Amino acid sequence: MPKKSFVSSLREFPLDRAFTWFESGPVLLIGTACEGKANIMTVSCHMSMGFTPLLGCMLGPWNHSYEILRKTRRCVVSVPGADLMEIAVDVGNCSGASVDKFSRFGLTYRLGEESGAPLIEECLANLECVVRKIPPRGGPYQFVLEGVRAWHNPDREEKRSFHARGDGFFIIDGETLNLRDRMVKWQDCI
Amino acid sequence: MPKKSFVSSLREFPLDRAFTWFESGPVLLIGTACEGKANIMTVSCHMSMGFTPLLGCMLGPWNHSYEILRKTRRCVVSVPGADLMEIAVDVGNCSGASVDKFSRFGLTYRLGEESGAPLIEECLANLECVVRKIPPRGGPYQFVLEGVRAWHNPDREEKRSFHARGDGFFIIDGETLNLRDRMVKWQDCI
Repeated sequence: MPKKSFVSSLREFPLDRAFTWFESGPVLLIGTACEGKANIMTVSCHMSMGFTPLLGCMLGPWNHSYEILRKTRRCVVSVPGADLMEIAVDVGNCSGASVDKFSRFGLTYRLGEESGAPLIEECLANLECVVRKIPPRGGPYQFVLEGVRAWHNPDREEKRSFHARGDGFFIIDGETLNLRDRMVKWQDCI
Repeated sequence: MPKKSFVSSLREFPLDRAFTWFESGPVLLIGTACEGKANIMTVSCHMSMGFTPLLGCMLGPWNHSYEILRKTRRCVVSVPGADLMEIAVDVGNCSGASVDKFSRFGLTYRLGEESGAPLIEECLANLECVVRKIPPRGGPYQFVLEGVRAWHNPDREEKRSFHARGDGFFIIDGETLNLRDRMVKWQDCI
């Protein structure tokens, strides 16, 4: 169950800038809630599909969250910092069918007003989403999610996200460079 | 025109491991060739959709390569190292309609046998691809590409890729950690 007695550090974030959390391809957590039970899974196969923001995510019948997301059509997409790397990997290596992951991994959440899904206090950012496209039963298993409300946690000391190579190796964000002056064609986005 | 007199440093790479180049979400170059003219564009909105490998890529009518890719149904997806960051950004900020980008940016290529599209010598990796799904004319503009032959350049000193945040900031790969021991559920992939 969500903790009700804490003061959240999450602050609202401009929805039209939330695409900047995802376009670099970090490992994400996808949170759902159904019949009073919240769950999370780990996703590294996703892409920015629009500035609304729109997000494509691979998530199939081999995931416990698959049927829940088809049913509820709501979720929260969260960006864990590099300090949560081992937890995020472990979240992706057990199933919500048998494990209360929030309890096991000591993560704190409240349910978002727009999504009814868990906003994770310890993450850098959380995007409440509505499912805009459910994949066909036979695949390809790509959901399209649209963000409807965005939250970040400016108090986290660890600001770096991390990326999965897909083979058990994970890459932490290194140096960040500002090349805005070169983006002459895309001034509307930057 | 491609240079014919150089000795290529590209070496063939196991196709079923090429997904590890993309899942972390690096900035990619997409190369096409049509009527004797080779071109490249820069893409940061893409996702791994399968181990074949399959790659989803956002690419729309605002890109010069869009009509070419619809027509030729072949391309090469290349991974530039961090040493090519400024070039990759500049490639994405001019159009192949008016610029010979290979000449302007001093990149060397030969045309791949499987794709007829440019394999870039200076990139870390090149994947010859066949287009498996053309997007509908009205969007969403997601192509699905399937890799058919993979090449890497083990001689490049710079091994790091880089990621676009979408707002003109770019993140270079930092520390890479091996968490294979924790991937108990995904032993087949690692």
